[in-house]
Amino acid sequence: MLNIATDTFAARGYNNASLAEIADRAGLTQAGVLHYFRSKSLLLTSVLERRDQGDIEQLGPERPRGLAFLRHLVDTALRNAEREGLVRLYAVLSAESVTEDHPAQAYFRDRYTGLRAFVTDALTEACGLPDPDAPRTRDAANAIIAVMDGLQVQWLLDPDAVAMAASTDLVIRSLLSTLAPDRFSN
Amino acid sequence: MLNIATDTFAARGYNNASLAEIADRAGLTQAGVLHYFRSKSLLLTSVLERRDQGDIEQLGPERPRGLAFLRHLVDTALRNAEREGLVRLYAVLSAESVTEDHPAQAYFRDRYTGLRAFVTDALTEACGLPDPDAPRTRDAANAIIAVMDGLQVQWLLDPDAVAMAASTDLVIRSLLSTLAPDRFSN
Repeated sequence: MLNIATDTFAARGYNNASLAEIADRAGLTQAGVLHYFRSKSLLLTSVLERRDQGDIEQLGPERPRGLAFLRHLVDTALRNAEREGLVRLYAVLSAESVTEDHPAQAYFRDRYTGLRAFVTDALTEACGLPDPDAPRTRDAANAIIAVMDGLQVQWLLDPDAVAMAASTDLVIRSLLSTLAPDRFSN
Repeated sequence: MLNIATDTFAARGYNNASLAEIADRAGLTQAGVLHYFRSKSLLLTSVLERRDQGDIEQLGPERPRGLAFLRHLVDTALRNAEREGLVRLYAVLSAESVTEDHPAQAYFRDRYTGLRAFVTDALTEACGLPDPDAPRTRDAANAIIAVMDGLQVQWLLDPDAVAMAASTDLVIRSLLSTLAPDRFSN
């Protein structure tokens, strides 16, 4: 059931997906779906929560630190090229979440806030920077998250033209060289 | 009329926007809107074409070259922070375009193909690289476009947390240092 809902939201977006279609593909009635999930927006919440299991940004204090965290981001980009459905779900819903009254708006706002803090921490630690709140470190962290997101849309439209992991790795290495030229040479 | 359609597509996405609402806000009947634009998808085409006027990727052979082109991208990110409606339109529709049978899918695929070629050219020229088809240059070009796109979604959700122009500038400078360390030092 959640697989079908995931596929349908990824293929159509949340707003354009219909509960009737999801129920039909799952061999249930709409009333049957609503019995378990109460509403279309709560079904979306279940899809997003399941998607997060095992994702690094949900690891909390147990996550890898510093350079190991940044390497994990490149590994994630590499794995993403093997899981097009999840990439599509995330790309479509994160952008759709900025539309009016979207039920996943708070989810994505909070997700980015958490991710930004994690990547900023990792850069600060990897580069041995004195100030954890330096604007340039924050700008670099936001850029790393942005490049991963933006590459997904380009890759979904034209997979042969985009190497998500190689581009992500290049940006992270280049930013490390800028933030800490003594530690990371070009 | 196109302003109202632009605002409505930006606020709701294409799939979720209704012609009835657009007509109503414009003080027209649906038949009146269809008289001028034929269909909802042709109305979207008109909105996207108008949005492109004056945008750098449409400048063709007259566009600035090399470093001047890259600087123009940073200027675009700076100007984007003053035109939230257009940013929203682009962010929502580009991601929505990867959904099934979306009428703007070819538009965005072509747009990215063109942009990638322009940014690859600019990097090759700015860095004095011998090979215009080097994979690393392509990876860097894709990343620059991606970072601009990804920052828009983060900024729309949380404007105070994201400096689009500063992050874009930092990524471009860092990539230049990686691609041509003799020309661009950190």
